[in-house]
Amino acid sequence: MNYPNGLKKENKENSFSYTNYANRGMSLESELNITNEYYRQIDKAYIYKKPTPLKIVKVDYRKNKVTEGYFDTPSTTDYNGLYKGKYIDFEAKETTSTTMFPLNNIHPHQLKHLENIEKHGGISFLIVRFTKLNKTYLLLEKDLYNYLQTTTRKSISINYFNEKAYLIKDKYSPRVDYLEVLDKIGGI
Amino acid sequence: MNYPNGLKKENKENSFSYTNYANRGMSLESELNITNEYYRQIDKAYIYKKPTPLKIVKVDYRKNKVTEGYFDTPSTTDYNGLYKGKYIDFEAKETTSTTMFPLNNIHPHQLKHLENIEKHGGISFLIVRFTKLNKTYLLLEKDLYNYLQTTTRKSISINYFNEKAYLIKDKYSPRVDYLEVLDKIGGI
Repeated sequence: MNYPNGLKKENKENSFSYTNYANRGMSLESELNITNEYYRQIDKAYIYKKPTPLKIVKVDYRKNKVTEGYFDTPSTTDYNGLYKGKYIDFEAKETTSTTMFPLNNIHPHQLKHLENIEKHGGISFLIVRFTKLNKTYLLLEKDLYNYLQTTTRKSISINYFNEKAYLIKDKYSPRVDYLEVLDKIGGI
Repeated sequence: MNYPNGLKKENKENSFSYTNYANRGMSLESELNITNEYYRQIDKAYIYKKPTPLKIVKVDYRKNKVTEGYFDTPSTTDYNGLYKGKYIDFEAKETTSTTMFPLNNIHPHQLKHLENIEKHGGISFLIVRFTKLNKTYLLLEKDLYNYLQTTTRKSISINYFNEKAYLIKDKYSPRVDYLEVLDKIGGI
């Protein structure tokens, strides 16, 4: 209900609206980092972004400087941590599409990783932002898994998000309050 | 009992002994990576080493190559994951000292991190290898915390490890079977 259809706007750098906090040109990653810092400060949860995986080839040790490194294919996800004693693990992605989320955004290793987390008793999910729609969804691993079992398509339709995923409310603080969604779903 | 005093040897690259698996010139980090891979393969636990934190300054995107990066001070630990539904988090360090573990090996942020993990319901610890003694210990966060509360010393004596920490057996596979120690301690 925070997202009346008539009010959708293009996402512009530095555009600012007092009623639409997502529309500030800030990346989902930055907003999640701020959100996780907020959760840590109020001692609600202890969740971090992992460093970017990099194969380090050459180092200038006098300067503590890497002069040659290559981006590695990630085998795990970007975020993990603890909430109410439970292991939390997720990947976050943005898309400019208004109709679907392209699955080539996520490596097969990462899908397997999310599945393994659930198998070992953790809670895993995707956070997907449709930037042009100003909508950010939380899709639980089980719903992602079920989708992948029944299709060979290389994308997930926005309709599936509307049907199965949970909309994360657009707030000032914390910016992307995904734990509120987990609280509502229950089971933690 | 795997470590008779009379048999201690210098740790040499490529030296090999059939009865002493730790003494192969392999780093603790490499052995832990192999151990965690083994745990994942037999589906016992799901624990990973995090990538090295790096501040990436310059990237050649055509080559997917980092040409300037600087090592960041770690704010978290190197390893985390899931075992029997519990969040596991630890830091691993080697020392060539035979009498004490220097605390400047660990950043204050990391000590606080280990403490926060316990506070939020996870299980955290240090794995410390005294390379010249061929001994690898698991020190639970609570025992690390208690030590730090009662001393201003900048090191932990080997005596404290012998008194409070758990010796991790020296095996062929998995190399550093730290989960066996957690199983014995109980509570997971």
